[in-house]
Amino acid sequence: MARESDDLTDVTDLEEDLEDLALDDDYAFNPEFVRMVADALDRGDAERLRELLGALRAEDIADLMGFLSADDREELLPHLDPELLGDVINELDSEIREDILEHVAPDTLAKALGEMDSDDAADVVDDLEDDKKAQVLAAMPEVERAAIETTLAYEDETAGRLMQREVVAAPQFWTVGQAIDHFRREEDDLPELFFDVYVVDPSYRPVGAVPVSHLLRARREAPLAQIMEPVTEIPVGMDQEEVAYIFDKYHLISAPVVEPGGRLVGQVTVDDIVGVIQEEREEDILALAGVSDAGRDAGVFGIVRSRLPWLLINTLTAALAASVIRGFEGEIVKLAILAVLMPIVASLGGNAGTQTLAVAVRALASRELSAVNAMRTVTREMTVGALNGAALAVLTGAVLYAFFRDGGLSLAFGLALLINLFVASLAGALVPLALDRAGRDPAVSSSVFVTFVTDFTGFFAFLGLAALILL
Amino acid sequence: MARESDDLTDVTDLEEDLEDLALDDDYAFNPEFVRMVADALDRGDAERLRELLGALRAEDIADLMGFLSADDREELLPHLDPELLGDVINELDSEIREDILEHVAPDTLAKALGEMDSDDAADVVDDLEDDKKAQVLAAMPEVERAAIETTLAYEDETAGRLMQREVVAAPQFWTVGQAIDHFRREEDDLPELFFDVYVVDPSYRPVGAVPVSHLLRARREAPLAQIMEPVTEIPVGMDQEEVAYIFDKYHLISAPVVEPGGRLVGQVTVDDIVGVIQEEREEDILALAGVSDAGRDAGVFGIVRSRLPWLLINTLTAALAASVIRGFEGEIVKLAILAVLMPIVASLGGNAGTQTLAVAVRALASRELSAVNAMRTVTREMTVGALNGAALAVLTGAVLYAFFRDGGLSLAFGLALLINLFVASLAGALVPLALDRAGRDPAVSSSVFVTFVTDFTGFFAFLGLAALILL
Repeated sequence: MARESDDLTDVTDLEEDLEDLALDDDYAFNPEFVRMVADALDRGDAERLRELLGALRAEDIADLMGFLSADDREELLPHLDPELLGDVINELDSEIREDILEHVAPDTLAKALGEMDSDDAADVVDDLEDDKKAQVLAAMPEVERAAIETTLAYEDETAGRLMQREVVAAPQFWTVGQAIDHFRREEDDLPELFFDVYVVDPSYRPVGAVPVSHLLRARREAPLAQIMEPVTEIPVGMDQEEVAYIFDKYHLISAPVVEPGGRLVGQVTVDDIVGVIQEEREEDILALAGVSDAGRDAGVFGIVRSRLPWLLINTLTAALAASVIRGFEGEIVKLAILAVLMPIVASLGGNAGTQTLAVAVRALASRELSAVNAMRTVTREMTVGALNGAALAVLTGAVLYAFFRDGGLSLAFGLALLINLFVASLAGALVPLALDRAGRDPAVSSSVFVTFVTDFTGFFAFLGLAALILL
Repeated sequence: MARESDDLTDVTDLEEDLEDLALDDDYAFNPEFVRMVADALDRGDAERLRELLGALRAEDIADLMGFLSADDREELLPHLDPELLGDVINELDSEIREDILEHVAPDTLAKALGEMDSDDAADVVDDLEDDKKAQVLAAMPEVERAAIETTLAYEDETAGRLMQREVVAAPQFWTVGQAIDHFRREEDDLPELFFDVYVVDPSYRPVGAVPVSHLLRARREAPLAQIMEPVTEIPVGMDQEEVAYIFDKYHLISAPVVEPGGRLVGQVTVDDIVGVIQEEREEDILALAGVSDAGRDAGVFGIVRSRLPWLLINTLTAALAASVIRGFEGEIVKLAILAVLMPIVASLGGNAGTQTLAVAVRALASRELSAVNAMRTVTREMTVGALNGAALAVLTGAVLYAFFRDGGLSLAFGLALLINLFVASLAGALVPLALDRAGRDPAVSSSVFVTFVTDFTGFFAFLGLAALILL
């Protein structure tokens, strides 16, 4: 690659070229770059590795890890200095992280953890095996260890675990100038990045917040109490999904986390929330499909274990629904076309039920569906089910009649379809509502139940009507 | 509610009581509060309405609108002043917003739009009917109109539409002190809230960014060029899903948006991104279920229209899969138990396919699945399918044998299950990968295709094997 440039530009160019090569336009890793890293690792070419990794950010290196073999990952570790290692560990998928953590010496890990926010460091420590956890904590300075231990005392997936303990607070009676001067003086004690200064009363309870950009442009003499805005307090025990909902709804950038007494103990920032939202949505998609994600690096047996339980439950429900058919074996022997048509009725019901279910789960998650409009929603779904059922019944009934010239068969099929789509819509709306009312996740286990209902109804309605009308 | 307090506290107490009443602990609207608002609207009690709405934030009022009837919503409008109206319109679901916009006078709307960020205002204008759009734009000041028209020139769902044009930029050669003094002086021209100051070269191209909190604590003499950090530039034409991915991956709070020449034209902030992520994830859930969301306020016919197309496609695929059964009517007449067992084979295949599909769609969305590991992933899925199939085959085969004492039937059923789960895993992985490779959304239409494959394979494999082995 011949370029007219001096040496300095060459180095920068090389880095930029590598950067362009590493990630393609939609930020997916380029297979060629991954191969280059793997080759450099195989050759033990530290110089080349430094060059290649230099083109990447910590988030990209973490991503790259996911595309390397376990051996290559392990070999890559010594090439990362503690600060970068901390950032990388922070971004790793959990199953790769567990694997990596086993191969990092306690001392190195303690150093890397010291570079992280307390919430992230606590997450990593929580992932360690018990004896390693003790070693790593012992290798950390007292203050950092205490912060991590306090964070770990909160329950998983709560605001307490999500929050960082580092906050910037100022007393009510301070002016803008006093606050700014204080921050300049105490520079080293401030969090690396912050968006709001929380104004606190003498008991350290937040009474308001001043966005940093407001602080910057306000008059120095203005009292904080005058320019502060109301805050949305997050109780330390609040579920992280709830916290994410509040951030999304009120467009928050950061929010103070308070203990039961109202005392400020930390803050949640929006960048943590983006991760939570991604996580919760992904969980919904997977839960609706009856699967938990074993992760991209999971072994075959890990995946089998993550999927077999639902398949076993589905075997039971499918067998139960199919057992209805046994009662109609006589009819099927007399009229084999029934066996051909009955799966169509079941399948369409299953589809309609899944549609309603997905809409209801989404609406529940966004609080658009609640006690206020539950009855109205169910009624509307029943109407929709009946109308869709009627439309399909007329259409398919007509097609069937054109084929078989059998009015009874067409009638039984059409009526069964109408009934099944009605029941499907009802089940698709009621099942997630009932799970939600019972305090359960409406996405988990609802689809297997709805499919059972629609299979059962489909078989029973069609075969039953056929027996009544035709035989 | 008797309290020992003076008059002032009473007013505050009332407001807090109403606030507590309006939203329950998990921020869902309380039916009683919604009824109170509807009653006040019916009575035309402006005083009471002011009281009730005063307890709510704009986001809550928008949410409340979704639970009111169309008539009540219309009556509520005059009770909101322009600024609040703007905030509320901003937060409304799109179908309710369209309805509301018809009932607001162009002048009022122009005033409300003036209070919004340019990106939000452009979204609203875009929703207006053509003649109303012209009226509203004509009623706006020249500068605001121009900003909105520029934003609307960018394609929907791109960074250009998502960004706000208001940015804070400073030349490279400024010091921290110069920048702060400038911001204090030009206070009125600054955006309401900002998180980063973009450092630009003489051609107004971003060369770095200084987080506001760093500005606050840096020495006044420090040159911006010295304390600035690298920025991730967003091309103005980038798809919003891509932008969201970058924000999530690199934990960005704001990012500069640049024109093709590299000139800074706006910024995207993380609060807009949270909305995009929610939206895109919800779309995935719905797309996998073969439904588009018509919204909570949609009429019955709107919902029917949103669901019937997929049901019609499903009718065709279900009929196609079931047509396989016709070739085996003779076998079914001879052995009716085949009709009972065949839906179980199809159903389990459908389930396994849906599991693989959901995992693949999620992995593609998070870039965990890409060209680098596509082959490895498909191979792994096939192995998992074969293993799950074998496990279920042995188990169900044994149960069947215990019931019917027919080795051939158990063998046919088990083998068919093994084949179908293998094919299901293959289809569940390949279909979304192929759609993604073709530049299509892997969540849309993949489930209907996978289900067709597993139904077809299930029927054919089981009935075919039964015909070979048993008859």
